[in-house]
Amino acid sequence: MLRQRMSKKVLIVGGVAGGASAAARARRLDENAQIIVFERGPYISFANCGLPYHIGGEIELRSALLLQTPESFKKRFNVDIRIKSEVLSIDKKAKTVTVHNIAADTEYTESYDALILSPGAGPLIPPIAGVRNHLTYALRNVPDMDAIIASIEINKPKHATVCGGGFIGLEMAEALRHRKIKVTIVELGPQVMASVDIEIANVLHDELEQHDVELKLGKALQGIAPSAPADKSLILTLNDGSVVETNLLIMAVGVKPETSLAVQAGLEIGELGGIKVNAFMQSSDPAIYAVGDAIEDPDFVTGDAIFVPLAGPANRQGRLAANNIFGAKETYKKTQGTAICKVFELAIASTGLNEKTLLRKAISYEKVYVHASSHAGYYPGAHPVTLKLLFDPATGLILGAQAVGKEGVDKRIDVISVAQRAGLTVYDLQDLELCYAPPFGSARDVVNQAGLVASNVMKGDEVIFHSEDLESLSDKQILVDVRSELEVDNTGMIHGAINIPVDDIRANLCKLDQNKEILIYCQVGVRGHVASRLLTNLGYKVKNLSGGFKTWKLATR
Amino acid sequence: MLRQRMSKKVLIVGGVAGGASAAARARRLDENAQIIVFERGPYISFANCGLPYHIGGEIELRSALLLQTPESFKKRFNVDIRIKSEVLSIDKKAKTVTVHNIAADTEYTESYDALILSPGAGPLIPPIAGVRNHLTYALRNVPDMDAIIASIEINKPKHATVCGGGFIGLEMAEALRHRKIKVTIVELGPQVMASVDIEIANVLHDELEQHDVELKLGKALQGIAPSAPADKSLILTLNDGSVVETNLLIMAVGVKPETSLAVQAGLEIGELGGIKVNAFMQSSDPAIYAVGDAIEDPDFVTGDAIFVPLAGPANRQGRLAANNIFGAKETYKKTQGTAICKVFELAIASTGLNEKTLLRKAISYEKVYVHASSHAGYYPGAHPVTLKLLFDPATGLILGAQAVGKEGVDKRIDVISVAQRAGLTVYDLQDLELCYAPPFGSARDVVNQAGLVASNVMKGDEVIFHSEDLESLSDKQILVDVRSELEVDNTGMIHGAINIPVDDIRANLCKLDQNKEILIYCQVGVRGHVASRLLTNLGYKVKNLSGGFKTWKLATR
Repeated sequence: MLRQRMSKKVLIVGGVAGGASAAARARRLDENAQIIVFERGPYISFANCGLPYHIGGEIELRSALLLQTPESFKKRFNVDIRIKSEVLSIDKKAKTVTVHNIAADTEYTESYDALILSPGAGPLIPPIAGVRNHLTYALRNVPDMDAIIASIEINKPKHATVCGGGFIGLEMAEALRHRKIKVTIVELGPQVMASVDIEIANVLHDELEQHDVELKLGKALQGIAPSAPADKSLILTLNDGSVVETNLLIMAVGVKPETSLAVQAGLEIGELGGIKVNAFMQSSDPAIYAVGDAIEDPDFVTGDAIFVPLAGPANRQGRLAANNIFGAKETYKKTQGTAICKVFELAIASTGLNEKTLLRKAISYEKVYVHASSHAGYYPGAHPVTLKLLFDPATGLILGAQAVGKEGVDKRIDVISVAQRAGLTVYDLQDLELCYAPPFGSARDVVNQAGLVASNVMKGDEVIFHSEDLESLSDKQILVDVRSELEVDNTGMIHGAINIPVDDIRANLCKLDQNKEILIYCQVGVRGHVASRLLTNLGYKVKNLSGGFKTWKLATR
Repeated sequence: MLRQRMSKKVLIVGGVAGGASAAARARRLDENAQIIVFERGPYISFANCGLPYHIGGEIELRSALLLQTPESFKKRFNVDIRIKSEVLSIDKKAKTVTVHNIAADTEYTESYDALILSPGAGPLIPPIAGVRNHLTYALRNVPDMDAIIASIEINKPKHATVCGGGFIGLEMAEALRHRKIKVTIVELGPQVMASVDIEIANVLHDELEQHDVELKLGKALQGIAPSAPADKSLILTLNDGSVVETNLLIMAVGVKPETSLAVQAGLEIGELGGIKVNAFMQSSDPAIYAVGDAIEDPDFVTGDAIFVPLAGPANRQGRLAANNIFGAKETYKKTQGTAICKVFELAIASTGLNEKTLLRKAISYEKVYVHASSHAGYYPGAHPVTLKLLFDPATGLILGAQAVGKEGVDKRIDVISVAQRAGLTVYDLQDLELCYAPPFGSARDVVNQAGLVASNVMKGDEVIFHSEDLESLSDKQILVDVRSELEVDNTGMIHGAINIPVDDIRANLCKLDQNKEILIYCQVGVRGHVASRLLTNLGYKVKNLSGGFKTWKLATR
């Protein structure tokens, strides 16, 4: 009886990712706690990351996305799941919430000892003229997915436009191509996938175009008008005056934290517009926790508030909130924002900070590029992995990494993510012992290679330069392409370069004025390193282009 | 002139992995150094890890395995490569070696400032009667590979026997099956792949048998006799009296460090029979370095000498020796022995110490098992990954890990290998931010799950038990299978168990005597955890079977 009276009553707003994790964890911590989950929609704990793949047809069964039902969750965890129930307001003083039962259209209040807000983030719909129409959709939940599929099946669109080139935009573009629909992506920024830098995104731009996705980068959607036949077409006007006729418009420009309830309750909102929480996941009211896409996370490197709507952090935060409600004092360990996206044949992934952010925050950094084989080149099925590693030139600490390729991208970013979280440096990356057999990797893995190159830079064994440094070649410099003649014939050289293949350098030293700075490049940087060491050891002043011609091509696409 | 006189003369014995790495690095450090590599065989820097795959036909072109020729290496690195040149002896005092030019059958001496021994390890051929015959081969280098392929093409064997179930034995078994040859593996130990524990190896045993590889475990080859027709068959006698008629015998029982040169020179040999080196890779003579398969490595966890003939460490050690010869003071960072092997559809990998070794060394440990999906189960192509995590129950430090499955095994072991090397604990594994999108992983990755389970054990949130504890079920214990009735019908239960599905426990508490210890299991451990938390919270004394019925089946195969 004492136990019963002392048990906590925990209310949770939102029944996906963070909310579902919190509910299950709370039950495992206390069999007698009263736990109620309010979910506005008709489903809980659905696979929201799977929605585009059902639209595209890779995931055949819609039911595969419904991981739990209110009934199954109740049975397993004895949690009272109330779907179609919207929490309208919070009374912090009374510790109650007002709930709208949508089906019955009734309202009631429910008291709490602890409240967890996990309302998520909703699609950002810019106030464009004509955006509310029956051919324009956003994708957040199962009903949205159903509506898009219905629109495709009824209207049989020949062309679709995806506004926004982030994760959802890219996944939707691919899904629509799987449905044999022509696709245009309209993206305000100069690149898709803002989480990576533009030279890495350029690999995606190629891939998208190879799969007949039209890219309109640096363009804004300004107007939407119905077209004849009026019920099956839209005329989109972009800010460059161009016009796109389309049969389906997906708005995927971003998401915004659902903070209306928090705002109403007077909880503190952060600078980025998310609910502000402390390391215990408590909002400004200590009885109210907030988790998932609605909150601001602390960035792993800077500690600054960032907005990271990803499933992994949401699940961890939900669990953490439950732990702390039931007596733990655990703290959230900050967010690196490790993320990956499949785009047709490619995977693109990143962790930590990108170069754009480092520049914006004026954080000192150096970067190296490695293009290496996903596994031993002599074993079938190897593909190049392009890896960009950002690090602190004073300490060697890892600041971030990005990778793109057909195979093995996930594991390289996973490895660097762990290394960054553990506080390892680029020196440590050299010595990581990673799985090697010819079908899986190389004796010197892509990550080891990046560590070696970065360590060489740190120690001054190699001075590198980057594509952007090439914009202004002076007459005190000689640019030397050390690739083979055949390669040069096939791809051309960077303007102003002379060609001396690496193996011929010793015989051609006369061509290199020792008073000039020698800028070297090869295809990916490896032969350039050999050449730069050779010339450095002979007393030349030398720099090697990190990532070589391949990076230069990406950076100057 | 001064520069020339001061340049070092470096001799390297062995032109593969460690030797080739050392030579290339030495040249990059000093353009004027005199560098000579002596290689006994006809090839340098060949892909020895690729040899079985050319025998099996996956790697079609033999030339793909020859990564460098003496000519290409000379051109690139200006290194004097002397193939078919065997170093016969070392005069430490005079700092000279005596070399046998095999082709010319002449001898000469060569002086050195620094000497690097990278002679590798040779196949161990036990002194079995009749082992020297024209149908018996070992696989170490390109000529061995050529000889095996020639034997197959000339003799067209119907049946082959592989003696030894390590990496090479397993890869050869698969290669021979690709050639449509029936295969028997004879292994002295109770399991193949000694680097993992037996319950993990049991997954391989199933896979091998499903691919028609006959396993003779715990059996020794005792006699080999020619059979009629005498030139195409051998009769093998095993220590259980059984007899195998075979047309090709591959001896792959292990490798032994090539130490004859080191022994002759009076260099210190370690307890395991490898060349003893310090952290700078110096042998007992400071002018003589040794690297690769011929040396003993320090174990990452214990610091004890171990013998780890792997390409990754060999390459790192070769580079390190070169660095130190040219003035660095770098130390080798110990060896975890991270390794992976493809066996038909499966990958099996491990890092750190296994349970057998922990038991043998009387190191305190706990273990958890996780069976989870390689990526989101609702996205096509997901396969289970079985992961065993070994950790220090006092500190939570990672001691080792093993994984097996069809997909994503390499990256899980890579991630844990990095975590172990960085000194992370099982608590940290919970919070790792790993790449998640449905085609690549789960919001809560296999490794996160292992971290969660191990952390629960560390904190006492869950008490686990293991299959071996079940051998003695007392009348003070109740064994409860919490899987569904359907699962129980399909697989049966562990002897002595009663079935109460997890979702029915709350309604069936009457069946559980509070004075007894409740031993719970489900299929993989997740529902068992839910049940164990439920009952623990109600005051029961509960334990959950780590890895559930699936682990029990593997452990009791």
